[in-house]
Amino acid sequence: MPTIVVDVMPKAELLDPQGKAVAGALTRLGVDGFSGVRIGKRFELFVEGEVDEALLETARKVADDVLSNSVIEDVVGIEVVE
Amino acid sequence: MPTIVVDVMPKAELLDPQGKAVAGALTRLGVDGFSGVRIGKRFELFVEGEVDEALLETARKVADDVLSNSVIEDVVGIEVVE
Repeated sequence: MPTIVVDVMPKAELLDPQGKAVAGALTRLGVDGFSGVRIGKRFELFVEGEVDEALLETARKVADDVLSNSVIEDVVGIEVVE
Repeated sequence: MPTIVVDVMPKAELLDPQGKAVAGALTRLGVDGFSGVRIGKRFELFVEGEVDEALLETARKVADDVLSNSVIEDVVGIEVVE
């Protein structure tokens, strides 16, 4: 079943308290090598049948209008996974 | 700055109420074409410098031990984005 994966991240200029908390936890656990963490969402939209251009356009519209809040989030990726 | 992207999804055999709510919203909005929605998390780990095998191994361990709860979630992807 093909799946359309939509990735949504908090806008770069906004604080991401959840990501900051994870970054702090890694430091406390003694994990080095990462200078920061940001946390977003990954949506999997399941498709019965074929993914055509019209459905991809629908997915792009849904990503912008329903799956993300454009005031605080960016849609950073839409891809089809078979 | 290279980024290690970790994707975490709820296990397939578990209900995903958040995903179900979005799928229901799409149906009510008259959006056809998607048979289901599942919602997971996308972590971006920022790296200063090079990503070597040791750091990737650290990222895999962090993904399993800190970023996901193996009782209810699976790490479905770890990739390096330049």
